Amino acid sequence: MIQKPRGTEDLIDLKVREYFALEVVIRQIVDTFNYGEIKTPIFENLELFKRGVGEETDIVSKEMYTFKDRKDRELTLRPEGTAPTVRAILENKMYINENLPLKLFYFGSMFRYERPQAGRNRQFNQFGVEVFGPKSPEIDSEVICLSSTILNTIGLENHTVHLNYLVNGDQRKKYINDLKKYLEPKKICDDCKKRIETNPLRVLDCKIDSKKFDDVIDMKDYLSDEDKTYFDNLVSNLKNIGIKPIVDKMLVRGLDYYTGFVYEVKDKKGSTLLGGGRYDELVNQLGNVDLPAAGFGLGMERILIALQEEEIYISEPISLDAYIIGLSEKAKQFANILLLMLRKSGLKVDFDFMNRSMKSAFKQSEKLNSKNIIIIGDNELKENVVVIKNQITKEEKKVAFEKIVDVIMGE
Amino acid sequence: MIQKPRGTEDLIDLKVREYFALEVVIRQIVDTFNYGEIKTPIFENLELFKRGVGEETDIVSKEMYTFKDRKDRELTLRPEGTAPTVRAILENKMYINENLPLKLFYFGSMFRYERPQAGRNRQFNQFGVEVFGPKSPEIDSEVICLSSTILNTIGLENHTVHLNYLVNGDQRKKYINDLKKYLEPKKICDDCKKRIETNPLRVLDCKIDSKKFDDVIDMKDYLSDEDKTYFDNLVSNLKNIGIKPIVDKMLVRGLDYYTGFVYEVKDKKGSTLLGGGRYDELVNQLGNVDLPAAGFGLGMERILIALQEEEIYISEPISLDAYIIGLSEKAKQFANILLLMLRKSGLKVDFDFMNRSMKSAFKQSEKLNSKNIIIIGDNELKENVVVIKNQITKEEKKVAFEKIVDVIMGE
Repeated sequence: MIQKPRGTEDLIDLKVREYFALEVVIRQIVDTFNYGEIKTPIFENLELFKRGVGEETDIVSKEMYTFKDRKDRELTLRPEGTAPTVRAILENKMYINENLPLKLFYFGSMFRYERPQAGRNRQFNQFGVEVFGPKSPEIDSEVICLSSTILNTIGLENHTVHLNYLVNGDQRKKYINDLKKYLEPKKICDDCKKRIETNPLRVLDCKIDSKKFDDVIDMKDYLSDEDKTYFDNLVSNLKNIGIKPIVDKMLVRGLDYYTGFVYEVKDKKGSTLLGGGRYDELVNQLGNVDLPAAGFGLGMERILIALQEEEIYISEPISLDAYIIGLSEKAKQFANILLLMLRKSGLKVDFDFMNRSMKSAFKQSEKLNSKNIIIIGDNELKENVVVIKNQITKEEKKVAFEKIVDVIMGE
Repeated sequence: MIQKPRGTEDLIDLKVREYFALEVVIRQIVDTFNYGEIKTPIFENLELFKRGVGEETDIVSKEMYTFKDRKDRELTLRPEGTAPTVRAILENKMYINENLPLKLFYFGSMFRYERPQAGRNRQFNQFGVEVFGPKSPEIDSEVICLSSTILNTIGLENHTVHLNYLVNGDQRKKYINDLKKYLEPKKICDDCKKRIETNPLRVLDCKIDSKKFDDVIDMKDYLSDEDKTYFDNLVSNLKNIGIKPIVDKMLVRGLDYYTGFVYEVKDKKGSTLLGGGRYDELVNQLGNVDLPAAGFGLGMERILIALQEEEIYISEPISLDAYIIGLSEKAKQFANILLLMLRKSGLKVDFDFMNRSMKSAFKQSEKLNSKNIIIIGDNELKENVVVIKNQITKEEKKVAFEKIVDVIMGE
């Protein structure tokens, strides 16, 4: 039998209902924050990720699905959502002044060719937020607040916000120099030895070595006065809205494009739930437009696993307003009409399409958690009535055709 | 500048809001019909579509995006949603008797390498419904009814349902023989000349030649008595629920897997809005499980174009409950707290993050269609009040901190 490709998943039953419930909650929250949706294509030109994410990153160098179309264009299934969003706002010229701040969100599948493991599939679904235009502690704190509000709303209040601030400009060069000096005498993995030259910041992120760097020099000691004030204001803004960030000098994030604050939200075990930060150079780099930006992304599957671990279910249990059983051919034809009538009134109704025995049809209605069972037989049809059994009160009564909707609606 | 790949689209602004509004309406309707969601991966093993859709179809022979992963597996971006759904119900063993009927729906991006034209992109979004288990005029009429209800609900009442019934078994062979005899003397295109041998039914579908076949033999003259009764019952069921199908002997649909009724819904110009039918052999063919099935699919973009042509807009116009302007650093910090407070109450609120002048901030609030403007200055902060300007009544008043939520909620 043909199976799904390795590292992919079918979302069915409770899983897909939890997934959708999470999407609904997130949509409600981003709406109150006045973010607007954007949907970009599943694939982009390879070049976008080379330039937007960085050729040296693991994502671009090892993990992308790239293929050629029939005209030999190199296309890549998107591994992340920020570069495509930047491409889209540039291409659609959405960045004109009166549109700013451009507050966008997206839901979408992302693709990374990694070793599949729990919560880390090759296709995964991401929700992300990007804000273009403003650069201020207020907007940064809004971004962090939005992510934290989502977690609080679904019941994951037990999380911590880890925050750092990346040093920029000339100061960055100085820091990088000192960091190299700090790292060089350390015993580190082969990957990290290369990273010291290509991207020393990412050594701090290394899964193997990161624990050896507790005494690493702190980027924040290199910040300009302006950046220091900015960071202090961000921290105080966050505290004002009830978020106590844990400042973490080791936090650098795996992507090349971050320039200002970076943050991760972790669960009580210290495992990352989501993350983001400021990336003021990326728009310029991709489209020669000077446009500060910040954002965050979360893996939907990651959040759903966290909910599961806490035994929190956010979807409604399945239920039905009525389940219809037709006892004859004529009754089935009438059921057809009744189904549409009830559904048009917004009621959730189903019918025994499998011609089950009465006993097993009743069982089915219980499985579907139906509040009512409507039984239609030839005798009833002659009297212009149906039998309605209320499964909650266990009351059973004959109901005239024109009263059925009212009775099922509980009026 | 890097652009989106040819044949793809960014959904932004009104377009994405209309898209989402359509999804919401469809979800409400499928819920009343008691269908459950399924999400399958974006790519599948190539083999699935070869076997599930048919190697002779245009889709599989010409239009698929197929590529190899790093382990040389041949993967294909899904060109349609039915074969993946069948693969998923087989692989997850969802077809056990007590789950039947298995009533599923999906939303998802599909990919076909075609010449891009209006309403026909290489990546497009499809909504589809599949029912596994029952084979009866009642369930077929439910499927057709569901698609028609969606169109009625969004305002596309002006549509027609075109219906045909494919002949099966031994009778099919007889019909195909007679069809070949009918077609052979006709002057037809080169593609169709080949199709006479590989798949003569699809000749009737040919965009170039189909008009020449008005006098073609009718499949329904070949139906078994059982199939004839089935079809008559389906037509009468449809009429009972107010759908008058136009029976069309030319309607065969472009896919190989259909076996019973096939249908298309067309707009007033005769252009197809959606289509589907019964495919009782596909599950068996892919997984050796005997499971009748029927379904339909619609292109979201196709429906959105139809709405646009009728100048129907189904999304809510943008609006805001309140827009906050902070006149000092302190005011901005307070705004941060107020934002969260209002948003926590479910209100949609935004803030002047761009440090605009008073005049241009007011303009911005008008652009965002804000019902209220909240102005915070240092004097107001000292008095523990803010100024709220109601943009509908044009009333302006000072409001104590603890009353702000109530006032914005209009209580």
